[in-house]
Amino acid sequence: MRLLVIGGVAAGLSAASRARRFDKNLEIVVLEKGSSISYAACGLPYLVEGRVREAAELVVYTPEYFARERNIAVRTGAEAVSLHHSRRQVVLAGGERLHYDKLVIATGARPDRRLLGGRTLPNVFTLHTLEDALRLREFLVNRRPRRAAVVGGGYIGLEAAEALRTHGMRVTLFEASAFLLGRPDSELTQTVARHLERCGIEVRLNQSVRSLEADRVDDTACDLVVLAAGFLPNVELAAEAGAELGPTGALRVSEYLETNLSSVYAAGDCAETVHLVTGRPVWIPLGTTANKMGRVAGANAAGRRERFPGVVGTAIVRAAGLGVAITGLAVHEAKREGFDPAAVRIEARTRARYFRGKRITVELVADRRTARLLGGSVVGEQGVAGRINVVAAALTARMRVDEFQHLDLAYAPPFAPVWDPLLIAAQQLLKQL
Amino acid sequence: MRLLVIGGVAAGLSAASRARRFDKNLEIVVLEKGSSISYAACGLPYLVEGRVREAAELVVYTPEYFARERNIAVRTGAEAVSLHHSRRQVVLAGGERLHYDKLVIATGARPDRRLLGGRTLPNVFTLHTLEDALRLREFLVNRRPRRAAVVGGGYIGLEAAEALRTHGMRVTLFEASAFLLGRPDSELTQTVARHLERCGIEVRLNQSVRSLEADRVDDTACDLVVLAAGFLPNVELAAEAGAELGPTGALRVSEYLETNLSSVYAAGDCAETVHLVTGRPVWIPLGTTANKMGRVAGANAAGRRERFPGVVGTAIVRAAGLGVAITGLAVHEAKREGFDPAAVRIEARTRARYFRGKRITVELVADRRTARLLGGSVVGEQGVAGRINVVAAALTARMRVDEFQHLDLAYAPPFAPVWDPLLIAAQQLLKQL
Repeated sequence: MRLLVIGGVAAGLSAASRARRFDKNLEIVVLEKGSSISYAACGLPYLVEGRVREAAELVVYTPEYFARERNIAVRTGAEAVSLHHSRRQVVLAGGERLHYDKLVIATGARPDRRLLGGRTLPNVFTLHTLEDALRLREFLVNRRPRRAAVVGGGYIGLEAAEALRTHGMRVTLFEASAFLLGRPDSELTQTVARHLERCGIEVRLNQSVRSLEADRVDDTACDLVVLAAGFLPNVELAAEAGAELGPTGALRVSEYLETNLSSVYAAGDCAETVHLVTGRPVWIPLGTTANKMGRVAGANAAGRRERFPGVVGTAIVRAAGLGVAITGLAVHEAKREGFDPAAVRIEARTRARYFRGKRITVELVADRRTARLLGGSVVGEQGVAGRINVVAAALTARMRVDEFQHLDLAYAPPFAPVWDPLLIAAQQLLKQL
Repeated sequence: MRLLVIGGVAAGLSAASRARRFDKNLEIVVLEKGSSISYAACGLPYLVEGRVREAAELVVYTPEYFARERNIAVRTGAEAVSLHHSRRQVVLAGGERLHYDKLVIATGARPDRRLLGGRTLPNVFTLHTLEDALRLREFLVNRRPRRAAVVGGGYIGLEAAEALRTHGMRVTLFEASAFLLGRPDSELTQTVARHLERCGIEVRLNQSVRSLEADRVDDTACDLVVLAAGFLPNVELAAEAGAELGPTGALRVSEYLETNLSSVYAAGDCAETVHLVTGRPVWIPLGTTANKMGRVAGANAAGRRERFPGVVGTAIVRAAGLGVAITGLAVHEAKREGFDPAAVRIEARTRARYFRGKRITVELVADRRTARLLGGSVVGEQGVAGRINVVAAALTARMRVDEFQHLDLAYAPPFAPVWDPLLIAAQQLLKQL
């Protein structure tokens, strides 16, 4: 009995490892088309920045580790090019055919390079693989570029902009929409954009890039370009074999992470999941979700019956030193989903002044009809992750604002103010319901 | 129509302020027996330590502020000595009688000074009022004491020990029970005790102090003593007027914070509340709960009908630089409450090494029969408050461990590892259920 896993990064290796835990006898083979596995992709901007000194620091495990410790065969440079599900066969680029009994598709996603129209330019980079990051770093060291353009105002774009700015470059960030981080929230965008501008990163919103050349993005001259304007799920292999896509364009899966093909599971950036606030499919490709989905897909491929409930859309990014975190729905999204949202945004201090408390902004969104909390954002230099996580837990539990306002949060002067900013926001929000 | 509030610190002033918000015409009088109101009592150890330079930094509002901005009369030095509820009268120490229509009892709690048997000794201190802290600070400056004994291993004892140690003193901490922080958890106690010892604070557990003299605690010589060995609710005034006490010895209140006396509410450290994990009355006197209860009592005294749901027992303390946080039930408590608890304690890193992540210990407790999360603790130098708050939110929502393990927590290298320590703990705990 063989479990084949296509993809050797977050979801694929989590799946393989967890399957092994439940079935000692299963043959498990992981196919990775790249040369490295199990690398911490979210660390790539920090490899560019220089905080991470060596690529090896981001490689968590090697194929040898998996072979020795987990009896899992990991093949790098092994690209699956087609899938014949009726014969339970995967065909590799070299023509080799591999049989499977169970299959986990963890093919991930890829940067959208459509702007390049198939060209490759030596000073245009993406930040998706270890090789990408190393190539960019080498370029920075050898060419000493002075002006950078970053296309895309999502997480990767913001992290890339920060990394390049740290290298002393003049950075211009282009974002096609009116919003940063894909969050339809003008105030959040303005807060982040103002901060970036203060840190020397020029932000151009509503600027859809029309032409990308080696020395300019539209009319802006630059020595290098980082392309971070979108991500596409790698669904082609599975789709051609008959796997259904969902409304988001990623692979459709059940709560057990089954595709419509029997014994074929999908996990991570190539698959959809459910948004727990709306109950609807979403595609929010993030490493943490990929790992969680991988675990569940692996368990089920090994005969278990575990559910992956979904996500609430939590994300955090450091944007030139500022912590920016979101979860659940922004007001516009809530309206679109049929809620009647009310929202507040408050500024407060993370703790007593004599413990170097900093200003923090908390936004909470709730439904007027039910008082149910729908989302929130937290922006500041301190205490951001912990607070967005409390909101995320509350969303998962479908908590109402009147319940949330009484949360028994930890208080002592070195850690928090007696009224936590989260509770202040909840109290203000209640007045609007 | 007059609302009288007895007590001018956290609960009392929250009550008065909130009552004003709902009723512009109510006459509101606050009686405070001390000379200061609205001081941040939790900041007192840091006034002793010297981080807070002046008492004024801890005084949030003055009586003048309340008179001017909120039309609330605050009388300091006004000690209520008896209560005649049939006549709706409070008698002050000077003999003055004040009528009330509604009454909020926010008389707080007091340090247990029974060890002193009624004596006062010039070098024995408590840390309850601004005057206490100022007297101790003056003693430190003028007398330059070298050896201190702290009696009591709760929050105040630990904070006092840290403050005295910061002044370069040799500090011995005496705790009558086998546990620090009132948490029946040997491992937590050992972790904290070892840390304190490394920082030069000697910890003597299971040592009930039998004699307290000016120059020694039992057989340990010292130049000063801080008495922090217990807290008693100030219930006498209300109890003598017929207010019922609950099983904890504090004032019994309904979920609307009503006492059994009509139109008489109680809030803060003098009153019980409900533990949301057990559903039973508890007395956990903390500033944050006092403020929340005060708001609810004030609203209801002004004609609203708000509920105070209760607490989950969250608390945090900095012990010689180490963050120690608890919430819900420890294993022993869970057993005593009739649960069948399983627990894990894991050590992990708060974030990537290249972002100076630190070791953190997370303990989670759950019920084997229902998989419901019952409690937890978090100990570390970084990211402690945010994580205990997530557990607190989960307890409030009665979340199961299998739900908790899939929480969509924020991840990016500057903030957290891809598997948050909370989720690692939950995964481990699930294996035991």
